[in-house]
Amino acid sequence: MNILIIGGGGLIGQKLARALAQNGTLRGVPITQLTLADINDPAPIDAPFPVATARCDIADPASVAATVTDKIDVIYLLAAIVSSHAEEDFDAGMSINLFGTYNVLERCRILGTKPVVVFTSSIAIYGGEAVDPLGDHSYPNPQTSYGAQKAIGEILINDYTRKGFIDGRAFRLPTISVRPGKPNRAASGFMSSILREPLNGQRATCPVAADFEHYYLSPRKCIENLIKGANLDAADLGQNRVMQMPGRTWSIGQMIAAMTEVAGPGPATLIDWTPQPDVQRIVSGWRWDIHAEKAKRLGLTADDSFQDNIRHYLTDDKP
Amino acid sequence: MNILIIGGGGLIGQKLARALAQNGTLRGVPITQLTLADINDPAPIDAPFPVATARCDIADPASVAATVTDKIDVIYLLAAIVSSHAEEDFDAGMSINLFGTYNVLERCRILGTKPVVVFTSSIAIYGGEAVDPLGDHSYPNPQTSYGAQKAIGEILINDYTRKGFIDGRAFRLPTISVRPGKPNRAASGFMSSILREPLNGQRATCPVAADFEHYYLSPRKCIENLIKGANLDAADLGQNRVMQMPGRTWSIGQMIAAMTEVAGPGPATLIDWTPQPDVQRIVSGWRWDIHAEKAKRLGLTADDSFQDNIRHYLTDDKP
Ligand SMILES: NC(=O)c1ccc[n+]([C@@H]2O[C@H](COP(=O)([O-])OP(=O)(O)OC[C@H]3O[C@@H](n4cnc5c(N)ncnc54)[C@H](O)[C@@H]3O)[C@@H](O)[C@H]2O)c1
Ligand SMILES: NC(=O)c1ccc[n+]([C@@H]2O[C@H](COP(=O)([O-])OP(=O)(O)OC[C@H]3O[C@@H](n4cnc5c(N)ncnc54)[C@H](O)[C@@H]3O)[C@@H](O)[C@H]2O)c1
Repeated sequence: MNILIIGGGGLIGQKLARALAQNGTLRGVPITQLTLADINDPAPIDAPFPVATARCDIADPASVAATVTDKIDVIYLLAAIVSSHAEEDFDAGMSINLFGTYNVLERCRILGTKPVVVFTSSIAIYGGEAVDPLGDHSYPNPQTSYGAQKAIGEILINDYTRKGFIDGRAFRLPTISVRPGKPNRAASGFMSSILREPLNGQRATCPVAADFEHYYLSPRKCIENLIKGANLDAADLGQNRVMQMPGRTWSIGQMIAAMTEVAGPGPATLIDWTPQPDVQRIVSGWRWDIHAEKAKRLGLTADDSFQDNIRHYLTDDKP
Repeated sequence: MNILIIGGGGLIGQKLARALAQNGTLRGVPITQLTLADINDPAPIDAPFPVATARCDIADPASVAATVTDKIDVIYLLAAIVSSHAEEDFDAGMSINLFGTYNVLERCRILGTKPVVVFTSSIAIYGGEAVDPLGDHSYPNPQTSYGAQKAIGEILINDYTRKGFIDGRAFRLPTISVRPGKPNRAASGFMSSILREPLNGQRATCPVAADFEHYYLSPRKCIENLIKGANLDAADLGQNRVMQMPGRTWSIGQMIAAMTEVAGPGPATLIDWTPQPDVQRIVSGWRWDIHAEKAKRLGLTADDSFQDNIRHYLTDDKP
């Protein structure tokens, strides 16, 4: 089993690589090689099998051709730029999120090796005139270019699979919280930082009210689901290879109460409640009445409680 | 009012040009210039205003740049290759139907003139796991590459509009019947030829049973709707610029009965009923439980009866 993670230097790529190193197998077969490809040098990973790192810019077909070889059995296609970045720089979003995805799929088509391709879409594909409740069969009316590019990626995954060029699977990831590390350029950044910074003993600002609701998943569960996603049997997937990944809807107030329950009353006192109308305006269009019927039927799961999300952060990620 | 029809040599492009020539105005403004652009030389059109023809290959950005100038107010983007062609030649479908659409939209973005862009999508975007009844808010799970490329075009039209690069409108056209002229490479070809050939005094073959149902519109109504589509006020369109164009569901038996009612019993006797399993297999996945709520609310209409479709053919098109 030869695995390539494109975007292997990112949060999910690194955690996925570590989980694969621990498991040692994928799709029931021992892993013989793992390659982490990224536009930035990915951090190396300790594993009982060889792990290579490679520079790759998915926006460049030649770079993709050098990275995606006929030896690869499973590709995790995680490389992307996030919503606010793609919204500010339309060109970059199109060349990486849309054409980058296309370049990888085209390379697979030309190789003719029909690899399993696991693509990370996003709940950002929901929006606009899509009707609640949202899920596997919702109309994609995204209100960001990032969401539009992900919705197009989903359609490409389905068509390249239907044509027999790849064995694709696309998962609409919930917002990941608690996301470790430094804040990124996503407008959703506060949904992790109001927990992460206080749990690390630092102050944080909450730009929305306590009753703001959203759809979340912990990094640990996300990785579990991405591994299950590759393991799924093509015969069980039907005509639509795209599905919502399970998550849960919580309000900011519920998340903070969970933090207090797990870590005591201290962290919550480090949150400054400073309404930010520009952030509120963006996130008020985001959707949370989301259901993951197909993925649940196939055995993917969400966290049992937000207390679990907090515990996973403390166990897996707290510096 | 300076209008560009890309795909202006095709069936709909030519009929649209003739209708514009007759009307003399669009969006309430006198037409001062019409350009018909196509990869094949479009037939010239008589009009009370100047009509130019131009060679343009939308798959080639340089050709698009030469054709789409900052003088253009309204673009009809009709150029495409049809379903069976795009299914046989994946590369051609992607470069024309997907990248061709992208090239035109990118040219508009670079010009910064925010033209009205009317895009012709198709009911081929429905399919697979999409849930009946189908319409404006259905999940696009197309089962042809043509349908996938149109579904992507829709998302691009919405995002380029949301960003303020164009004032886009996309209509999912029903199957056009009675389509005049020679059969094309569409698998739906028989849905016109079993009427057109007999009405012209020639034999035709029906590859499916009389109870086969599908969703249709006459060319005349389609053109009317495309003109109304350009006239619509952006303020009435909401967050989703994509909508189903009204049509009606008829069985093959009902269509033939309508032909007999309008043209007498002769034509129906010219139909040979020869089941073709390969055609049946393709069209059995096509969808017909389709509803055009938004477009109807905005004043677009379907034919009143299939008798009308037959009459329009006899009046407008019969050689
Ligand atoms: N984290 C979330 O909340 C979330 C939610 C929904 C979807 N997703 C999706 O999951 C995937 C992974 O997310 P993440 O949280 O690990 O993001 P991340 O930003 O941590 O990682 C993305 C990686 O892609 C790399 N990259 C960017 N442009 C590239 C290019 N042109 N070529 C090659 N590599 C490039 C970056 O260097 C980065 O290492 C992304 O596709 C993202 O859109 C994430
Ligand atoms: N007629 C239908 O039943 C129907 C149904 C749904 C959607 N549509 C869509 O409506 C539009 C017009 O349909 P039509 O029936 O007039 O089709 P048509 O085939 O008669 O016309 C399409 C025109 O596009 C031109 N073209 C093809 N490739 C081109 C390229 N690379 N650059 C420039 N021009 C190119 C062709 O030469 C042709 O003149 C198409 O987008 C089609 O997909 C039609």
